[in-house]
Amino acid sequence: MAKKYSETHQIPSYNCDTMKNIKIPTMVRMLITISGAQSQSLGVSDDFVGSFNLGWIIIQHDVFIKRLPQSGEKITLTTEAESYNRFFCYRNFWIHDEAGNECVLMKTTFALMDLVERKMGSVLDEIIAPFESEKIKRVKRAEKIHSLETVEGEKAYAVRYYDIDGNKHVNNSVYLDWMMDAFDFNFLSSHIPETISIKFNKEMRYGDVAKSQWQKDGLNSIHQIVSGDTVNAEANVKWVETN
Amino acid sequence: MAKKYSETHQIPSYNCDTMKNIKIPTMVRMLITISGAQSQSLGVSDDFVGSFNLGWIIIQHDVFIKRLPQSGEKITLTTEAESYNRFFCYRNFWIHDEAGNECVLMKTTFALMDLVERKMGSVLDEIIAPFESEKIKRVKRAEKIHSLETVEGEKAYAVRYYDIDGNKHVNNSVYLDWMMDAFDFNFLSSHIPETISIKFNKEMRYGDVAKSQWQKDGLNSIHQIVSGDTVNAEANVKWVETN
Repeated sequence: MAKKYSETHQIPSYNCDTMKNIKIPTMVRMLITISGAQSQSLGVSDDFVGSFNLGWIIIQHDVFIKRLPQSGEKITLTTEAESYNRFFCYRNFWIHDEAGNECVLMKTTFALMDLVERKMGSVLDEIIAPFESEKIKRVKRAEKIHSLETVEGEKAYAVRYYDIDGNKHVNNSVYLDWMMDAFDFNFLSSHIPETISIKFNKEMRYGDVAKSQWQKDGLNSIHQIVSGDTVNAEANVKWVETN
Repeated sequence: MAKKYSETHQIPSYNCDTMKNIKIPTMVRMLITISGAQSQSLGVSDDFVGSFNLGWIIIQHDVFIKRLPQSGEKITLTTEAESYNRFFCYRNFWIHDEAGNECVLMKTTFALMDLVERKMGSVLDEIIAPFESEKIKRVKRAEKIHSLETVEGEKAYAVRYYDIDGNKHVNNSVYLDWMMDAFDFNFLSSHIPETISIKFNKEMRYGDVAKSQWQKDGLNSIHQIVSGDTVNAEANVKWVETN
């Protein structure tokens, strides 16, 4: 059994939308941050990983939302590095409310990038051992993501300075900002995602312009972020109406 | 002496820029949020204020930055509702680091909006008494803000769903997002603001497009946010080079 790591946070109002629900990209940011905190607590920080010329990259998130936590709520964020094979690490994240109910589950596939060769690196024992993850042979399949077939709408976003993180790339969660902004106020204030699967293909840099493109069929939407001829990220979202 | 209210927070990495400095708009959001927490703790929450058909609005922030707190730091946020006259309330905010050094001072002028008449409301005793603020006769002058004379550059920003807060307007701190994004990566990663004065004239709504316009003379910049013929906000920033 992999080691679990938890932190309790109160959700500030400025991390919530007009319906007082936590903003989706912020929620993902909060979850990813505790995986960094767990790594640090186990002595395998990003700096340690970097000493092997390796860096963590996110391949895909699969998010399952039962209920979106709201402004002022105290939530417990939990993670475990569940299992790994030669190239991939599979992490689970949960959000529980104060009563102990599961609000959100996120399953994330990570890989290691060889920062010198700019290709996938192997998962080293030194890096993974402290998590007590299960070593597996097979490649676990994340949720299947359907690619966009018809661009029904698009909006353009110039990368902002604050979109860039310590790696000098657009932070992964920013793609969700651009994707969530696809629909209008009426839709977004009366629907929340029930599931989100998002796959990251190619990082973006300062100076790039992203196009957020979408198609929607009822309560299912398909999204992609493109820059020039490159598809940087793809996502499928299933929405549910609130009230 | 006005009652002081403090909270200690650890700064998550996702609230920081590529230099690990706290993002300026997030810093202002964090400070404003503790004024709401103090109000709530004294039984004069926004809901209570709303029961008089009044709502707080921000007129101006004057921010003095000695040092920007960084990712992972534990900071103490403190506020007091220092003084008030018939129409304005003057609040101070501070950020101190773990060693007790003052990092940031923000002086904010608030007013009350009569939500029915859509004009300035009087500061009521029921609302202000719990803060033990000093009652003054005079109108305190905030920092003088020089208006933009020549548009040297501009960027356009469509209001996003997540820019809207509980009042259905663009959150005040978003104007700072648009203003800070005026300059390029090289400038922003090698300079921080030393002082910022920002005045809010007219709220923006979902569907509006903001233009962030600026002029810069050495380390001083003048900013305005306009939508159509309206100047929604104006700011002066004095920058200082880091390392």
